[in-house]
Amino acid sequence: MTRSSRVKISDVARTAGVSSPTVSKVLNGRAEVSPETRERVQEALRAHNYQRRPSGKQPRAGLVDLVIKEIATPWSVEIIRGAEEACRAAGIGLVVSAVHSAQTDAQRWLDNLAGRHSDGVLLAVSNLGPAERERLDALGVPLVLIDPMGDPEPGIPSIGSTNWAGGLAATEHLVRLGHRRIAMIAGLPNLLCTQARLGGYRAALERAGITPDPELLRFGDHFPPSGESAALELLDLAEPPTAIFAGTDLQAFGAYKALQARGVRVPDDISVVGFDDLAACDWVTPPLTTVHQRLVDMARMAVEVIVEGRADGGEPSRLELATELTIRESTAPPA
Amino acid sequence: MTRSSRVKISDVARTAGVSSPTVSKVLNGRAEVSPETRERVQEALRAHNYQRRPSGKQPRAGLVDLVIKEIATPWSVEIIRGAEEACRAAGIGLVVSAVHSAQTDAQRWLDNLAGRHSDGVLLAVSNLGPAERERLDALGVPLVLIDPMGDPEPGIPSIGSTNWAGGLAATEHLVRLGHRRIAMIAGLPNLLCTQARLGGYRAALERAGITPDPELLRFGDHFPPSGESAALELLDLAEPPTAIFAGTDLQAFGAYKALQARGVRVPDDISVVGFDDLAACDWVTPPLTTVHQRLVDMARMAVEVIVEGRADGGEPSRLELATELTIRESTAPPA
Repeated sequence: MTRSSRVKISDVARTAGVSSPTVSKVLNGRAEVSPETRERVQEALRAHNYQRRPSGKQPRAGLVDLVIKEIATPWSVEIIRGAEEACRAAGIGLVVSAVHSAQTDAQRWLDNLAGRHSDGVLLAVSNLGPAERERLDALGVPLVLIDPMGDPEPGIPSIGSTNWAGGLAATEHLVRLGHRRIAMIAGLPNLLCTQARLGGYRAALERAGITPDPELLRFGDHFPPSGESAALELLDLAEPPTAIFAGTDLQAFGAYKALQARGVRVPDDISVVGFDDLAACDWVTPPLTTVHQRLVDMARMAVEVIVEGRADGGEPSRLELATELTIRESTAPPA
Repeated sequence: MTRSSRVKISDVARTAGVSSPTVSKVLNGRAEVSPETRERVQEALRAHNYQRRPSGKQPRAGLVDLVIKEIATPWSVEIIRGAEEACRAAGIGLVVSAVHSAQTDAQRWLDNLAGRHSDGVLLAVSNLGPAERERLDALGVPLVLIDPMGDPEPGIPSIGSTNWAGGLAATEHLVRLGHRRIAMIAGLPNLLCTQARLGGYRAALERAGITPDPELLRFGDHFPPSGESAALELLDLAEPPTAIFAGTDLQAFGAYKALQARGVRVPDDISVVGFDDLAACDWVTPPLTTVHQRLVDMARMAVEVIVEGRADGGEPSRLELATELTIRESTAPPA
């Protein structure tokens, strides 16, 4: 077992001269592999003494479960899209479940999961309670966290974003344009991603010799209404900001609403930067400058961790994909 | 159909010259049957007009498959959301697959489907070819069409929208505001939904005694760039329209872009109405007046048809859910 659990699908693929997804297909008994290729892969599996689940007698279900909080947010869509692409490439099905805030949703999902012997679970939620986590552990299903919002968990691989670097890049962009009074509308304060983005914002200010003004920092819940009300508060300050860095694109859209209601023009009167780079950034007026997160890649890589058996108890990895500033039309030098 | 439900697997096996277990393997999409045998068995199944689950002894897989064209469109998100809600309520898993334009995607999805004994398939794509449809039929999985884009298919239940009534309501709203030169940026001309919305538009004009001007009718592909280029063409007319009815919200967002580029204000200089009522209608400036489609309900009801066994060969129904005009800030009387 010790030997076999170290064999990676990529090693087998190299030996057989095929791609990793092809090896997965053979392992999953898919029809679309030619008999010759199948034979070659099976030989390579034998040569490597490959064993799928070290102790696993469970047959593969050909399913991966993705659990998200809400389906209808643009963030979720990107995650679903990446996961679906990777599952399709590996010849397996993606089961999508939403676990809202309610504990009952999580319970129900766990009941269903237990019945379908999923090959792995991609967890893209922050709110699974300790009881649910324990039950998930008991099921013995490999687990990968996507864009983790809490502290890293020992033994569980995760794939996230360089949130700190993203916050730094967004704020430095505004600093370089000449802004000094830069506000931040951050996300939920207890989330790791919020703290990291906020840390990047503060670091950029400090690097520019600007003392962060606590009045310019607001928190919200990642959705438009929280961005709208925070922006209204900022506009009501004795000395309002000349630029706003919003913790999410949706909060930036909410800020747009507040600014428009007050007749404040973007970017002429105030600059706005978002975070996420959702498709809607191109539809709003003006198109939103934002920090691009590789959400699709995140989900795709999480599926690969499952498919290649790397969530099965090897050394867990904590991966962060690089963010990148996408400059559109919502930022300009201060008036 | 009454006949087919009496067909036994042993009859099919005799015709195909194979054993009954081999027929079962083909029906269950097992990999260990040679392509030649599979073909022979499928022919025999067709010859006998075999339909699986006459009286439902197949164990329920606890899975429903949703097949959409793209995951990342706001339209798809609403469909996924409704289907997931209904599946969760029914205690089953929702497998989401995207079948882009490529035939290979469809083939791959069908291979996967065969392996997982799905309880039913929700088809929200327009582009499944005849070969794929035949294979789907052979699998004997209950099928429901969501928001069907082609002609109604005999024997297959579908759940759509009152597209004609929606087109009528959108255009009558503009007529009531006093507009006479009302353009339409329609969707793909060969789709049933496009034809219905266009029909509603024309009927509203005729009811108001306005002769439709062919110059004011443009077609696109439902996405923003097609709305943008069509709007630019309309603005270049000797006598441009005072209002635009876009066949989809995304096309309306594209039109917004064109109008903004030309310095034409919405709704002061020109009114715009969309179709779909996506969440982003609230984020754009000005918020978009549009025709609300009950996409979430459509998908939810489609799941219920599967779960309640109503897709299994009872009388198929063609259901259309009512649309409703949602008035926001993009429409006003002509200048």
